[in-house]
Amino acid sequence: MVDVPQLVEQARQGRPRAVARLISLVEGASPELREVMAALAPLTGNAYVVGLTGSPGVGKSTTTSALVTAYRKTGKRVGVLAVDPSSPFSGGALLGDRVRMSEHASDPGVYIRSMATRGHLGGLAWAAPQAIRVLDAAGCDVILVETVGVGQSEVEIAGQADTSVVMLAPGMGDGIQAAKAGILEIGDVYVVNKADRDGADATARELNHMLGLGESRAPGDWRPPIVKTVAARGEGVDEVVEALEKHRAWMEEHGVLAERRHSRASHEVETIAVTALRERIGDLRGDRRLDALAERIVSGETDPYRAADELVDGLTNGG
Amino acid sequence: MVDVPQLVEQARQGRPRAVARLISLVEGASPELREVMAALAPLTGNAYVVGLTGSPGVGKSTTTSALVTAYRKTGKRVGVLAVDPSSPFSGGALLGDRVRMSEHASDPGVYIRSMATRGHLGGLAWAAPQAIRVLDAAGCDVILVETVGVGQSEVEIAGQADTSVVMLAPGMGDGIQAAKAGILEIGDVYVVNKADRDGADATARELNHMLGLGESRAPGDWRPPIVKTVAARGEGVDEVVEALEKHRAWMEEHGVLAERRHSRASHEVETIAVTALRERIGDLRGDRRLDALAERIVSGETDPYRAADELVDGLTNGG
Repeated sequence: MVDVPQLVEQARQGRPRAVARLISLVEGASPELREVMAALAPLTGNAYVVGLTGSPGVGKSTTTSALVTAYRKTGKRVGVLAVDPSSPFSGGALLGDRVRMSEHASDPGVYIRSMATRGHLGGLAWAAPQAIRVLDAAGCDVILVETVGVGQSEVEIAGQADTSVVMLAPGMGDGIQAAKAGILEIGDVYVVNKADRDGADATARELNHMLGLGESRAPGDWRPPIVKTVAARGEGVDEVVEALEKHRAWMEEHGVLAERRHSRASHEVETIAVTALRERIGDLRGDRRLDALAERIVSGETDPYRAADELVDGLTNGG
Repeated sequence: MVDVPQLVEQARQGRPRAVARLISLVEGASPELREVMAALAPLTGNAYVVGLTGSPGVGKSTTTSALVTAYRKTGKRVGVLAVDPSSPFSGGALLGDRVRMSEHASDPGVYIRSMATRGHLGGLAWAAPQAIRVLDAAGCDVILVETVGVGQSEVEIAGQADTSVVMLAPGMGDGIQAAKAGILEIGDVYVVNKADRDGADATARELNHMLGLGESRAPGDWRPPIVKTVAARGEGVDEVVEALEKHRAWMEEHGVLAERRHSRASHEVETIAVTALRERIGDLRGDRRLDALAERIVSGETDPYRAADELVDGLTNGG
């Protein structure tokens, strides 16, 4: 038996083990998931969630680590969620104690958690917001969500952040890659890392051009800044924090933060509801009704659409 | 206005334009989709559907073309569906007249159709079986479904075939690739193409080992054969046809064909039903109920799971 109220209280007090335990519970879709989520609800909504995306090799982990250092200097509690949708490993144990983050491992004001799964589609997009809620309830002021790789899942996960940072590095053809992956549109702040390398200015210019940042905007519109960093030496990282805080202030001023959180919550309910309905249909496998419908399709008596209509009608009328 | 009964009648008579038109209708999820599917239902169930999968470069198109030639020699009508889930192009117009298939372009006993989309997930897996139904109703005896690339979508599409052919070529590290993609388990017949190249025997041996084909099986179990081909010269292609026909006969003898078709139909109904339910939820966007739920989540008054429960209950009780 898991004592959820006790775990939540311990997490609220900032005990790392309780936080880890709760994330495992929500990540694993444990029987306690619903109880945990219900208990966390009143404790959430305080953290500022920052997503970091970009191709492998741009230096996301190094930048995340440098951002943690920068935020810690201002006394903020920081949560890090490193998400790898392509990894076959699940859970924090395998990736949790990442060497790159080791400098923060003994800091009680920092939680670091890796999540990875290549389970069913949408599995991760579904688990990440729950883990964010745990970190939020545990009193994190800032949560950095770092995604590995560039792809649809990353775009989805980035969509769960208040502010999205899109990272590039010089000479990787990243602009094109990011554009292909649909990632260029999602940045609120752009970081050109490894700015001490040849081509950093060209990358920034290319990015500026691709984003149409030179064009005039309506007053009050957010103009995504491009910040150059050498994260490995901490250069430019304070400027990234500054850009993040500016974006946050802008969002609050224009009601965008509330809007984004509202739309995220709405999307999340939708995802969970679809999953629940899906499971309801899944339960019918081997069921007489679905079996009979399949038989009628095979024999040509009906078609899959009419059959699906019958099935849905059956389900939505108390099935 | 589309005259569906007329189109279906023309397709049944084997008119290529009507076939093409019907596939466009089902592929594009047109308003007539349901009418088309209903009209096709009594005409389906006769075609033998063969799926071909394998990494790019193994020679799938060449092999497909050679198989068409082989089946045509026996007087069978053949449909070819070339499916590329990674392509941004949709519809037959762009990819339809593929040069590699051009030798069959003027043969009235052959239909060739390319399908490609990277729309919403499951989009293609959903459209392919409908296109197969059109080809089936149009009197194709054999339908070859060729998928491009190796990945989850391909595995799904292969699952819609009666018999799955998994293709490899020497020296491409294909065995490992295929194993990673979960494609090794789905083969009923294995083809090592480009068998005139170095390493063909090694690839066949490796495959034999990975599949555990050396191990003894229960009498009556299907033992997937490994056929070596040089499809570009037509070598080994008759042996592939022979292996396919053996597998088909085995499936019929053991009730496996009926079983597979039943389980496919059941899966299809499920997919369509989930999509329908998803759309029903999608309709609620901007709706008062979903809006109110999202607001309560943002404020911490409820959590996404309880909210989803409320939403689902609302939908399934006449919403």
